[in-house]
Amino acid sequence: MHMSYIDFIMEAEKLRYIKRRTPNLINGQRENDAEHSHHACLIAIVLEEFAPEINLEKVLKMLIIHDLVEIYSGDTFAYDELGKKIQKEKEYEAADKLYSILPSQLGQDLYNLWVEFEEMETKDSIYANAVDRLQPILMNYYNPQGGTWKEFSVSREQVEERIKPIRSVSPQLSDYMSSLLDRAEAKGYFA
Amino acid sequence: MHMSYIDFIMEAEKLRYIKRRTPNLINGQRENDAEHSHHACLIAIVLEEFAPEINLEKVLKMLIIHDLVEIYSGDTFAYDELGKKIQKEKEYEAADKLYSILPSQLGQDLYNLWVEFEEMETKDSIYANAVDRLQPILMNYYNPQGGTWKEFSVSREQVEERIKPIRSVSPQLSDYMSSLLDRAEAKGYFA
Repeated sequence: MHMSYIDFIMEAEKLRYIKRRTPNLINGQRENDAEHSHHACLIAIVLEEFAPEINLEKVLKMLIIHDLVEIYSGDTFAYDELGKKIQKEKEYEAADKLYSILPSQLGQDLYNLWVEFEEMETKDSIYANAVDRLQPILMNYYNPQGGTWKEFSVSREQVEERIKPIRSVSPQLSDYMSSLLDRAEAKGYFA
Repeated sequence: MHMSYIDFIMEAEKLRYIKRRTPNLINGQRENDAEHSHHACLIAIVLEEFAPEINLEKVLKMLIIHDLVEIYSGDTFAYDELGKKIQKEKEYEAADKLYSILPSQLGQDLYNLWVEFEEMETKDSIYANAVDRLQPILMNYYNPQGGTWKEFSVSREQVEERIKPIRSVSPQLSDYMSSLLDRAEAKGYFA
């Protein structure tokens, strides 16, 4: 077996050292990218029935790899608009570097899958992005301190903008988002 | 949308608080179950070509849920033979409790998937278990202190017993295991 498979696997081990802004619900630490990615995969499985016609295998692969670029480029907060513009270029460079570790066909396939996730133009990538965004929404909502919404003075309008892919997946998920954000607003979580 | 989906998702958030014995390679902490599960999924994707005829969607679903029972039953060290016997019963009780949170059809489907993983009698579950076991092997091998092998005086024979599912996946993986364990033995990692 070519060692490049193992080199890539061991590079991916570093995902757990990339910290996000989201606080974990119990231990007082910030969530890391591996915890987030796993939780997003779990959500994709549980809510599959609300996303008709998706290819779950492809969605899970996307979610498992979607944040690996951050091993080189770092995490950018979802509501940091300026940071996100700069981040985009850094992430494409990171993807080039990361996926070229692998044998060329597999590296190209995973790179393409990551680009599909980023471009968010297919049913599968919209669902994957929806789940990726729903995960921190739930983490904030179930945090009695209001999570990053409260800590970084995020407005409901900013959250509404962020959850558009979730609303587009299905009417049930959109209705659920409306009621969740109403309750979060009533709790005073938004700026 | 029925709230039981969300209740289950938020219960699964707790996977990140279940600590394993395996030390992380960089930050000096023990790995948690979410980090392990994510890394196992990544390995399943990268090594798919060495596992002919598997259904990767099913394998990834298994790996994403395989350790959720430990939220109630805790983790048992892979080389603790007595502990593992007691653990088995606790895990089936935990699975009953956990999967009954979900609407009945989905809960039953995921419960059945977990049982398939545990029984390790199908091609998919053998590959999922192989990857689940390969992950800590790699973590120990790439740890200059020899990880849990050295810390808990594990013998090569115990590791050989543990990796049987990896050897059964394909000749390439089996050859890779032999050379890795030879090198680990040369480094003095085994008791």
